[in-house]
Amino acid sequence: MPVIGVFDSGFGGLTVLRALLPLIPNAHYIYLGDTARLPYGAKSQATIARYAVESARFLADQGCDHLVIACNTATALALPEIKAAVAIPVIGVIEPVVAAAHAALLRATPTPTQDPSSQPSSAPVSTNRPPDHDLPTPQILVLATNATVQSHAYFQASQNHHLHATEKATPLLVPLIEEGWTNHPVTRQVLSIYLAEALGTCTPQAILLGCTHYPLIASEIESTLRKLNSSATIIDSAQATAAAVAQQVAQANPPSTPHRPATFLCYATDSTEKFRRLGSTFLGQPIPSVNLLDLGG
Amino acid sequence: MPVIGVFDSGFGGLTVLRALLPLIPNAHYIYLGDTARLPYGAKSQATIARYAVESARFLADQGCDHLVIACNTATALALPEIKAAVAIPVIGVIEPVVAAAHAALLRATPTPTQDPSSQPSSAPVSTNRPPDHDLPTPQILVLATNATVQSHAYFQASQNHHLHATEKATPLLVPLIEEGWTNHPVTRQVLSIYLAEALGTCTPQAILLGCTHYPLIASEIESTLRKLNSSATIIDSAQATAAAVAQQVAQANPPSTPHRPATFLCYATDSTEKFRRLGSTFLGQPIPSVNLLDLGG
Repeated sequence: MPVIGVFDSGFGGLTVLRALLPLIPNAHYIYLGDTARLPYGAKSQATIARYAVESARFLADQGCDHLVIACNTATALALPEIKAAVAIPVIGVIEPVVAAAHAALLRATPTPTQDPSSQPSSAPVSTNRPPDHDLPTPQILVLATNATVQSHAYFQASQNHHLHATEKATPLLVPLIEEGWTNHPVTRQVLSIYLAEALGTCTPQAILLGCTHYPLIASEIESTLRKLNSSATIIDSAQATAAAVAQQVAQANPPSTPHRPATFLCYATDSTEKFRRLGSTFLGQPIPSVNLLDLGG
Repeated sequence: MPVIGVFDSGFGGLTVLRALLPLIPNAHYIYLGDTARLPYGAKSQATIARYAVESARFLADQGCDHLVIACNTATALALPEIKAAVAIPVIGVIEPVVAAAHAALLRATPTPTQDPSSQPSSAPVSTNRPPDHDLPTPQILVLATNATVQSHAYFQASQNHHLHATEKATPLLVPLIEEGWTNHPVTRQVLSIYLAEALGTCTPQAILLGCTHYPLIASEIESTLRKLNSSATIIDSAQATAAAVAQQVAQANPPSTPHRPATFLCYATDSTEKFRRLGSTFLGQPIPSVNLLDLGG
């Protein structure tokens, strides 16, 4: 049975664990929220890398076979350091969500052979085809924390996938979600301001939720976009990352029988009571117990 | 020349330093913002105490004669630990602001001898008089972070001053202020919601700003209160704390001549550039340079 480590600075990564549990059963998950040192979003690269490496080493030492960095800030600022520090495969949240956006936009964009006015062609359509230089580069919009935006990690990953990314810092969304205002007029007003500012500078075909908190307000983001006359597709980082992890795990572990539901264990570096209470909202199911972990920082 | 250490988890304590600079000239100030580990407001008591003691020891080691804990959360949760860890006088932000509220309400409440329908009395009016048991206990409302509210430190300090405190957690205010939305419709809407909730449970004569960020939106808080038909006085923790420190320093240091303007030095445990940029707003003047400090956490 594979053991999958999932790391975040706080609770947000539980949206990734939530997506993983049904997708990869027959696995045991160890989740670590470095809650004593959150939020990473306001800290420097050196500090974030030090914190993330400590957490990654802890999960590797617990016997994890795969490690998921379910934290956009740590992925943006410390993925190379984390990969160098542990001997197990590591997946961050940025590459899978950009790849998912690329795939979704390719599906949505008619190729010359798909033009209904043209004759059908026998040439196979590859979803990995290079960009058509007659078409403009597809535009995407990334919503994220200050630190993730300042790293330009999404911009660079998008360039590798022939997408042009506009990165928009939306620092009030995490506090609003943690206040429980996920369906609230103030959150809608803040979203209207942030999205109107962003749509004033670009016309994106996809919006990437570049923070693992944001899936909790995905429907609010979508309805705000529609009010602002944008038809952009929303790409959820939790779902995209879980799909990439499932593919990696399936390659390493042939399907085992009998089918058993996934099990999980949670660690937090601060206030296990708060983790259990707030975390259950992100996980979408009760968290029976949380272990307190001292990483010494 | 006295050396005065000022400590906060972040930038908010700079509002206390701002109040201190003109009040106690002929002094040198050393400010430490433990920005790598902020916000303290969401952390456990044990973690906050450990962080605050490390910072207090650093300031004492720099030669400070007086230490100001310009952080409500650290004062609420770790003042005894800090006092035990250093050999210099320590002032937190809670006792001075509650004492200021007590004094302001005593001035505002007519004593029997001040009743215009009664004859004047020759008895002196003391601002430290015990409560008049014929009058109801004055009510105050404290706005603060989750951790400060959960500590009930303001409630206890208020009881010592014969005041009844209602404590209201207002966790979105710090992110709104740090977003720069100090004069913004969203901030006014959030204040309307928080204050209407609080005024539904009490009728305060004074509102205490129990977070050193809040002086930056004091005028918004006041206008929201008036719209909600409250005439409560706003007590600013920065001014109240600075006055208490001035009194302590004056007792220990006789006035020196010639008069020299105060000087200050800033340390931050993370991103000195962000500290300089954001901190200048809180201090109300440019911060020429910030030293990076590694406290190891």
